[in-house]
Amino acid sequence: MTAFSRPPELAHHPFAITLPIQWGDQDAFGHVNNAIYFRWFESARVAYLDQPELCGLLERHGLGPILASIKCDYKKQLTYPDTIQISASVTKLGRASVEMAHLLYSQKLGAVAAIGESTIVVFDYASQRPKAMPPDVRAAVEKIEGKPLGQASPA
Amino acid sequence: MTAFSRPPELAHHPFAITLPIQWGDQDAFGHVNNAIYFRWFESARVAYLDQPELCGLLERHGLGPILASIKCDYKKQLTYPDTIQISASVTKLGRASVEMAHLLYSQKLGAVAAIGESTIVVFDYASQRPKAMPPDVRAAVEKIEGKPLGQASPA
Amino acid sequence: MTAFSRPPELAHHPFAITLPIQWGDQDAFGHVNNAIYFRWFESARVAYLDQPELCGLLERHGLGPILASIKCDYKKQLTYPDTIQISASVTKLGRASVEMAHLLYSQKLGAVAAIGESTIVVFDYASQRPKAMPPDVRAAVEKIEGKPLGQASPA
Amino acid sequence: MTAFSRPPELAHHPFAITLPIQWGDQDAFGHVNNAIYFRWFESARVAYLDQPELCGLLERHGLGPILASIKCDYKKQLTYPDTIQISASVTKLGRASVEMAHLLYSQKLGAVAAIGESTIVVFDYASQRPKAMPPDVRAAVEKIEGKPLGQASPA
Repeated sequence: MTAFSRPPELAHHPFAITLPIQWGDQDAFGHVNNAIYFRWFESARVAYLDQPELCGLLERHGLGPILASIKCDYKKQLTYPDTIQISASVTKLGRASVEMAHLLYSQKLGAVAAIGESTIVVFDYASQRPKAMPPDVRAAVEKIEGKPLGQASPA
Repeated sequence: MTAFSRPPELAHHPFAITLPIQWGDQDAFGHVNNAIYFRWFESARVAYLDQPELCGLLERHGLGPILASIKCDYKKQLTYPDTIQISASVTKLGRASVEMAHLLYSQKLGAVAAIGESTIVVFDYASQRPKAMPPDVRAAVEKIEGKPLGQASPA
Repeated sequence: MTAFSRPPELAHHPFAITLPIQWGDQDAFGHVNNAIYFRWFESARVAYLDQPELCGLLERHGLGPILASIKCDYKKQLTYPDTIQISASVTKLGRASVEMAHLLYSQKLGAVAAIGESTIVVFDYASQRPKAMPPDVRAAVEKIEGKPLGQASPA
Repeated sequence: MTAFSRPPELAHHPFAITLPIQWGDQDAFGHVNNAIYFRWFESARVAYLDQPELCGLLERHGLGPILASIKCDYKKQLTYPDTIQISASVTKLGRASVEMAHLLYSQKLGAVAAIGESTIVVFDYASQRPKAMPPDVRAAVEKIEGKPLGQASPA
């Protein structure tokens, strides 16, 4: 369960978590089941949004994320035992939505084993509707990513 | 996904649900993973408590179940495809706890494949503490089971 | 757990399975967790390939499917209890790959709650490599779908 | 995901693994779902049997473990985020079976949150039947546990 140092393949994604593969993550084909990758992407997404510079802001604005779509490209089969790093990186900030990318790196294979792409809608709990992202949230995400992420399109 | 008629092995348990085995319930040993049985027991437990004669009463009393312990005895290996019946039966009513038994019957094997036993504590949401079961809840459970389930011990 | 009749929204997908939502499919947001949809798509995919007119052929050729990518668009939140239909339909036959679409219909909502899209590679177990789909497999899939699915591109 | 030092509560169990709680391990009650504990016990069990002094022996003898029964006592509710240690300890060696105990320690709670007990049958792959444990396997387990574990009863 030891964390391992960030592989160069993930260098452009500032945020990543480390997880062990559990034996029970494998299915009858003897490799990690395809649905498990989405559990891992979720863990990375949740941890990203839990970062101190972002978490408090979202709470103060009464905003929460809703997953609108997610995709996984499977590049390599994974097996127990292994330790993986899963990155989460916001690649685009829309008006009320966020594009997030994931890279899943296997320490055993020494390679990226899967790539994820998702769209998250910023949801206002009070009105129960999607909501334009406040400027301070945009700024916090751009600071985490270390680069500007595009202008919000006019409504 | 068709329900099948109640097997005689489950005749003494008045309540059961029917579920299909999903391919992904299997692990790298090529049979249903041991943890999945607890998902199924949970489904039977929830459905038991959702029965109309019980659900409304628990809600009115502000009571909810908390699982204190659960056990599974594995009798036969299960594989996809199969359809199973999982019973839930209260075997004992304590003061603030319930003993529940489960039988898991495989249509493909024509046999009981697993036996479950659990202890559920009756929890009062308002006080956040276990609570003695009200007489009408006791009566409702005994009616479902079709038999008396023992006197509550004095406090 | 009763099957329900095919909704018109799924009429153009000849194949679908019916599954109950289990209470434990829900996460801390109180709705079905995003990863569960991929378990359901998998169940539909496996059942599709298990159809008698296809299953024997694949086995005879020593071919198996490998999931190359999968995507889910979430349209509606799902909650327990509900019964869902999940379709699987081959929308395109490539040389050694298959595009499969899924519609997930909620009986409780009376609406399509999610849409899936996946790419499956036809894999030859003997050579451990992708393999061009044999003509009889192509014909069997087209017969299931009730329509031609495009010419294989030249190698 | 950092490992933390062994808590005194687990001192009498020489073997333990460390795992993070994932957000998605939680259910609609907002705490870790009861079935997840069995996934974690499994991870500890598999890692125990994978220890170098045991793994090779079992393989050489053509022996594998089959889970005959398992129980969990839930002591405390667990929530994300947290890091847990799950021990695995053989408490009794029968003729062809093993009693294994688990303690599940929460770093956030600073307490044992669950206790597991299981019975594992030693299974001979060649004959597809339970088999008496060879003396070298018994010795290896006793060495891991650092104490004698009882005489095998005569057949």
